[in-house]
Amino acid sequence: MQQSVLIDGRWRPADSPVGAFRAEDPTTGRACGEEYPVSGWRDIAAALEAGKRAAQALRARSPEKLADFLESFAGSIEHNRAELAAMASLETALPQEPRLCSIELPRTCGQLRQAAAAARDRSWCLAVIDTALNIRSRYGPLDGPVAILGPNNFPLAFNPLSGGDFAAAVAAGNPVIAKAHPGHPGTSRLLAELVFAALQSSGLPLSQVQFIYEIRPEDGLRLVSHPDIAATAFTGSRRSGLQLKRAADTAGKPIYLEMSGINPVILLPGALNERGSKIAAELGTSCTLGTGQFCTNPGLVILQQDAAGERFLQELGRNLDELPDGILLGRQVREGWSEALGILETHGAERLTRRTVLQTRGNPAMNTLLTISGDEFLKNSSTAQIEAFGPSTLTVLVRDQAQMEAVIKNLEGNLTGSIYSHSQEKDDAAYARIEPLLRTRVGRLLNDKMPTGVAVSPAMHHGGPFPATGHPGFTAVGIPRSMLRFASLQCYDHVRGHRLPPELRDRNPTGAMWRFIDDAWTQADA
Amino acid sequence: MQQSVLIDGRWRPADSPVGAFRAEDPTTGRACGEEYPVSGWRDIAAALEAGKRAAQALRARSPEKLADFLESFAGSIEHNRAELAAMASLETALPQEPRLCSIELPRTCGQLRQAAAAARDRSWCLAVIDTALNIRSRYGPLDGPVAILGPNNFPLAFNPLSGGDFAAAVAAGNPVIAKAHPGHPGTSRLLAELVFAALQSSGLPLSQVQFIYEIRPEDGLRLVSHPDIAATAFTGSRRSGLQLKRAADTAGKPIYLEMSGINPVILLPGALNERGSKIAAELGTSCTLGTGQFCTNPGLVILQQDAAGERFLQELGRNLDELPDGILLGRQVREGWSEALGILETHGAERLTRRTVLQTRGNPAMNTLLTISGDEFLKNSSTAQIEAFGPSTLTVLVRDQAQMEAVIKNLEGNLTGSIYSHSQEKDDAAYARIEPLLRTRVGRLLNDKMPTGVAVSPAMHHGGPFPATGHPGFTAVGIPRSMLRFASLQCYDHVRGHRLPPELRDRNPTGAMWRFIDDAWTQADA
Repeated sequence: MQQSVLIDGRWRPADSPVGAFRAEDPTTGRACGEEYPVSGWRDIAAALEAGKRAAQALRARSPEKLADFLESFAGSIEHNRAELAAMASLETALPQEPRLCSIELPRTCGQLRQAAAAARDRSWCLAVIDTALNIRSRYGPLDGPVAILGPNNFPLAFNPLSGGDFAAAVAAGNPVIAKAHPGHPGTSRLLAELVFAALQSSGLPLSQVQFIYEIRPEDGLRLVSHPDIAATAFTGSRRSGLQLKRAADTAGKPIYLEMSGINPVILLPGALNERGSKIAAELGTSCTLGTGQFCTNPGLVILQQDAAGERFLQELGRNLDELPDGILLGRQVREGWSEALGILETHGAERLTRRTVLQTRGNPAMNTLLTISGDEFLKNSSTAQIEAFGPSTLTVLVRDQAQMEAVIKNLEGNLTGSIYSHSQEKDDAAYARIEPLLRTRVGRLLNDKMPTGVAVSPAMHHGGPFPATGHPGFTAVGIPRSMLRFASLQCYDHVRGHRLPPELRDRNPTGAMWRFIDDAWTQADA
Repeated sequence: MQQSVLIDGRWRPADSPVGAFRAEDPTTGRACGEEYPVSGWRDIAAALEAGKRAAQALRARSPEKLADFLESFAGSIEHNRAELAAMASLETALPQEPRLCSIELPRTCGQLRQAAAAARDRSWCLAVIDTALNIRSRYGPLDGPVAILGPNNFPLAFNPLSGGDFAAAVAAGNPVIAKAHPGHPGTSRLLAELVFAALQSSGLPLSQVQFIYEIRPEDGLRLVSHPDIAATAFTGSRRSGLQLKRAADTAGKPIYLEMSGINPVILLPGALNERGSKIAAELGTSCTLGTGQFCTNPGLVILQQDAAGERFLQELGRNLDELPDGILLGRQVREGWSEALGILETHGAERLTRRTVLQTRGNPAMNTLLTISGDEFLKNSSTAQIEAFGPSTLTVLVRDQAQMEAVIKNLEGNLTGSIYSHSQEKDDAAYARIEPLLRTRVGRLLNDKMPTGVAVSPAMHHGGPFPATGHPGFTAVGIPRSMLRFASLQCYDHVRGHRLPPELRDRNPTGAMWRFIDDAWTQADA
């Protein structure tokens, strides 16, 4: 008996499913839990139609209702934290404590509450009022449901039913069609049950959130390019992302892709001389966090081949050998990671960590340190930038500063780039040459810090130049800015006052909303 | 002897040009003026390389230098207004007065000065500072030259050397590669000479602005998808726009397209009863402005087929017959317009204006009113929405309010949509049903106003849903918002204070820049 999908305001069996699947327990590699349907086009079509209607109905609802709903949902996630964390841990092998219960779940609820506050506050819509000409504009909701295709690595905080994309799309006033990652269907089902319960008492359309477990790749392409879809958010592999991008672009549909990368970390000589051990410890922790399955995993480290560099490498190797090994999210991840490591090794990378065979059941992963010379890297710089999604990092040993610059000039677009430098001015000259090269290749530039922490701050940017994402101006994390992905610019020219949306009337709708009126940001009335 | 192109800081002959052309005097249809080259790939490659270097050099220049340059250029346009207007009028048949000298040229200079002020002010970059976490972000320049491909219809205000895209791209800190429209090469050459003179005393890289007259379509596709291009702005036909979009999208390069549309105008019964004559006069003027060659031309008018509607149509027809006929920009425009009118007529539209044969020399255009029933429109709603770029409009006579709604539901994305309603509440019920349908299909919604005026206001939105443009969140007019097209989001996480760009340091760089610090917009220091 397959589990039901949530379409058009009710749980019902999938309509003509095209397949079925179960989750895999990553610790054993064995199927576990219930059987879930792979939906065919009929389910998607029904969701699109209901989502379109929901988008229309939503226009008459106040942002306060959206905010109440998001907060109520956050509360019920907390209330059910034990069950959620247990299920997520079973399906992903991520530990309940501290990761799921004390880090990811609170982050999830925090995001939902920040989004609720942004919906209530309304300042996110960047209202601009020109009183002399009576022209007014703001970002407002899109015209249909937003499809969210979630990743494997954060069953809660990036789940399409509870994560950052979900929070941003809903707070901006859009219905959501969530397609969970097949790696954690049970977790997604629990979240969908909670979200639906919160919906039922929200006064929002019941199709505000719809949920399907899995679809065929060709139906994914059809979904993101369908006339009734308003936009898509996708987090996952570059291969799938580029296919979806092509389909959406051709149809003129916005799509926001978070296709990850290798997040270069540059260690300048002064920093390594000053505090190499400390950095080796930080890097070891960062690149094994979540068994290395972070889109901000530091997958490429660039340093000079000198005495301090050699010491650093040895220490990092020891750290990685000593840190506990992890379990990868699934067979596909394990195979993909192994393949990527193999490609790196056949292109000149050497392994510095042990090769002990681990348990053969399930999806164990040995923390892995690879190293390659600057010369070898530059010979095949594109291949050497393959993402190895797992607890590993590739160190590039460059001959000198000039070669370091050459390596950086060959980097693709990435989410982040870190530069470690001497705590005083010793590395400043090198920094001044390297920073402009790295700045244009990453979304977030860090100093003396590993990239794995992605704070939910209004100033955060979790995005970057292609192919890290599809557009360099949008972020997937950081409320309210992430909401602008799911909004259109709407201008009102000479429109009569009572017909304006509340955000653009003379009177400030909340008494505290920020608006740009004539020449200034203000919380006052126009 | 072909005219020179402006590449890599100097005027030089085109390198291996692939063709040559001259402008056409639209009043006679005869070639006029100098001979201009069609550049081959070598010119484009040289411009890309120099543009990339200019982008790097620009990072060390202050926004004040950009602002000074834009203002100096605006001043020299004014200083040379007579020569510019004469040349533009010769090449486009647009009248020197009032259009070129007293409307378009002042608008052009006003835009350049607004952009200069925005560059100086810096508030455009929407800096966000989280002091607790020390995360800071802002929009900043892209990583390479911006290609601007200009349209035929505004030789000054949308010229890639002086228009809105130019002003926005430069003020945001990017070099520009301008490809002029071949309809007005002499005007573009004069502008390029002025811009280059202003550059030489600016302290900016001399490749800040580069200029080529014309390129082959295949080289256009190669240009917008080239690794060294940062982004593209295109204003022109849907056909060319979609080809460029596909090329740029595939390469992951941002492209902003202004592909125009038909700008529906909805006339509610109360408005027609109350002031039909006044509206007929407004519409007649609006749809013949610039011989109808505005991207905001009101090309589709929807009204009910009742007594007031019939009176309105007759009056509009008389107005159009009485208004002076115009001259179209060129042979291609004339042929395209005729073809579009022909398609509309073979799909059920009737002509209500005279068919007198005008002069046969050059590109004369007779003001034209077409009408079609709601039933016929709905039979071929896609064909009936073809853009007829010229002094014409298609009126759709609907049976009742329900059919009016059906017609609106079939509209494609457009830049604008206007609703005329009774000055009191008589049309309010109809407005309430129609507005939500129209709102989602247009970028700018107007009340009781024709769409042809596009004020350069911070609140303006000159954009709209696909296929009017390529993305519903960006505007081509309205500073500073139009600058965000040519910017990437740049985050600094834990970066040491002295290494931050001035916009993100604790101290406000101008003492007046608006920044979002912690929870509030402020002009204070952090």
